[in-house]
Amino acid sequence: MITKLHSSRPLSLRAFSTSPISLANRAIIFPKAGNPADVLQAQTYPSLPPPTPHSINVRYRFSPINPADINVIEGKYPAKPTQVNDLAGFKFDNGGVFVGGNEGLAVVTEVGESVEGLKKGDRVVMSKPQSGTWRSASALDVKDVMKVPDEASDGFAATMTVNLATAYNMLNDFVDLKEGDWVIQNGANSAVGQAVIQIAAHRGLKTLNFVRNRKNFDELKSQLTNLGATQVITYDELAPDSFKDLRSKVQQWTGGNPIRLFLNCVSGPTTTSLLRLLGKDAHLVSYGAMSKEPLSMPTSLFIFKNLTCHGFWQSRWYEDATEEEKRELVEKLVGLKLKEAEHEVLTIPAGDSDGVATEKVRDVVRKLAKGQYGKKVLLNIEQPVD
Amino acid sequence: MITKLHSSRPLSLRAFSTSPISLANRAIIFPKAGNPADVLQAQTYPSLPPPTPHSINVRYRFSPINPADINVIEGKYPAKPTQVNDLAGFKFDNGGVFVGGNEGLAVVTEVGESVEGLKKGDRVVMSKPQSGTWRSASALDVKDVMKVPDEASDGFAATMTVNLATAYNMLNDFVDLKEGDWVIQNGANSAVGQAVIQIAAHRGLKTLNFVRNRKNFDELKSQLTNLGATQVITYDELAPDSFKDLRSKVQQWTGGNPIRLFLNCVSGPTTTSLLRLLGKDAHLVSYGAMSKEPLSMPTSLFIFKNLTCHGFWQSRWYEDATEEEKRELVEKLVGLKLKEAEHEVLTIPAGDSDGVATEKVRDVVRKLAKGQYGKKVLLNIEQPVD
Repeated sequence: MITKLHSSRPLSLRAFSTSPISLANRAIIFPKAGNPADVLQAQTYPSLPPPTPHSINVRYRFSPINPADINVIEGKYPAKPTQVNDLAGFKFDNGGVFVGGNEGLAVVTEVGESVEGLKKGDRVVMSKPQSGTWRSASALDVKDVMKVPDEASDGFAATMTVNLATAYNMLNDFVDLKEGDWVIQNGANSAVGQAVIQIAAHRGLKTLNFVRNRKNFDELKSQLTNLGATQVITYDELAPDSFKDLRSKVQQWTGGNPIRLFLNCVSGPTTTSLLRLLGKDAHLVSYGAMSKEPLSMPTSLFIFKNLTCHGFWQSRWYEDATEEEKRELVEKLVGLKLKEAEHEVLTIPAGDSDGVATEKVRDVVRKLAKGQYGKKVLLNIEQPVD
Repeated sequence: MITKLHSSRPLSLRAFSTSPISLANRAIIFPKAGNPADVLQAQTYPSLPPPTPHSINVRYRFSPINPADINVIEGKYPAKPTQVNDLAGFKFDNGGVFVGGNEGLAVVTEVGESVEGLKKGDRVVMSKPQSGTWRSASALDVKDVMKVPDEASDGFAATMTVNLATAYNMLNDFVDLKEGDWVIQNGANSAVGQAVIQIAAHRGLKTLNFVRNRKNFDELKSQLTNLGATQVITYDELAPDSFKDLRSKVQQWTGGNPIRLFLNCVSGPTTTSLLRLLGKDAHLVSYGAMSKEPLSMPTSLFIFKNLTCHGFWQSRWYEDATEEEKRELVEKLVGLKLKEAEHEVLTIPAGDSDGVATEKVRDVVRKLAKGQYGKKVLLNIEQPVD
């Protein structure tokens, strides 16, 4: 079963892009940072050798294409995937390549020595950021995966380790929130924002959700309300002539209880205005800056209202967490019994040449860049015929 | 000894400002917020009655006039002193008055029932913010004072509970600093800044001290260096054309170790630039905003460099601290064996009329407002002859 290319036969990227080689596996790789529609390439590679001790071989089932994955490929993201010089013995020259993808659901196909708690057929998700999930199969260290409980659907499990985990941890790690407590968030219709709404509702927390005004605001409002949003408001109400009214409304909704957590993925002036709705001892947790503007804050908020500001990055969370904390996170996320994120699966069929597969992947990232996908795209890379 | 005015004889402020009444004590009061040179008044009042249980009577020895005291009188400070309707039985109408002063050293003159750990002659400082220290004598709850160890000089003890405590706690409460670690601060020549330099040096910490450029920069630099500053730098070096050089110098000084604590009392653009010198997982602690500008920060600093921002306010520290923590703070501060802050004493003599005393106090706050005092001013209000 193990097809290993002779190590004295290195192939340059140029070589395989013009003459595709059909092998047991396929990965979506990029030789260097750039426009994903230009640099992404499908690349077949051999079957995996048996796993080394403490390792497992896995077969990827669904690997999401997340917006941050695109930023990684563009070289605009602080986290870089590890450069690989070979894939299961298939060598790359020119310093190696990167495999795309951060998140993914995989099935254990083979278990190495000294592996405990995982067996063939178990489903796992990644706890090591940027491990390169856009491939059909991979060898992984057991400490870089988390076992998925049986009750989780494939679609849910494949998409829970980034956005859902971010939402869950931000609601958990900074303020000890009790049932009935209020949380403010902006960018409330983002993937994380929607997860925040659902998890908060599940915990009995109230959410004050800010979004941009738009033609179909009422539609968006009822969509978010159906997910569990307590209030949905546009940034327009932060304008000087309506702020006082807004403050009264908030006062009424909260019964005057101080709002102690604000989740921010926007920054810029609207975020500064929103700070005025916070109570004493509040925490601002930033996980994005969609406005591409900085956060500007009056110093008095820190000194006299005891505001604390943090950032949140799920990748760092995984780096810092213990095995036990990671296991617990997965169990909690699955235990929430949320609906799967809306998604569609992009299958790269076994029979496609690397050239055809390359075009399919480039086409989808081109569409994603133009915002032509409403749904999350999950890659399903079939194993090409060897 | 106890001279108590008959309670049916309320005196309006108007009344006593034109006909001073000589009594056993004197306070510097203000009937409402306003320009200190207009609203501050000296007011005599009777001897104190014996203390109630859990209380002590004290005689103030030195009560600093701090910049924040001026802001309190102006009504520009979030902490308000408690309004008092009478001073030892001397009644005020029109809703009462405020006694100035937040910090002060006093001597216990009488001890109430159930008071433990304090006896006549002990020296105490205030742990209750805005208790009105600009007076000759007061009755205080024992939980609102901290006993001063014998080895502390009067001048040191009188000025340690605000600036020195702020510096000490900021270096202590946010980052677990080890000998050799680096701290950045701006406004390094402020009273707190100088305390930070000395305490840091005492702990073996290195300080990167930023100040405004000025004609006598070399003089200031050697003054701060003598206090223990490791490096003294002007904000000019943050300019785009010199920032790279600065960064290299900092890199060399720190041996590449990440700077994890930044104490800010300035805010505005120079503070934003300074953030670029911080390492991963750093904490920014703000305790002032001398630029009167907000803090503007790139969101990526929070997310990818894990910056955390806090405020620090010594008043809140005292409100939150346990008795044990307060006792420990005083012992630690005294144990530092720092030099007294440079100060001069403004004595209000026993023989002055309230009118003369009022003018003396108004005169000094006028000079303080113009920056005509290089030194800290300590009020010593003698007890007028009854």
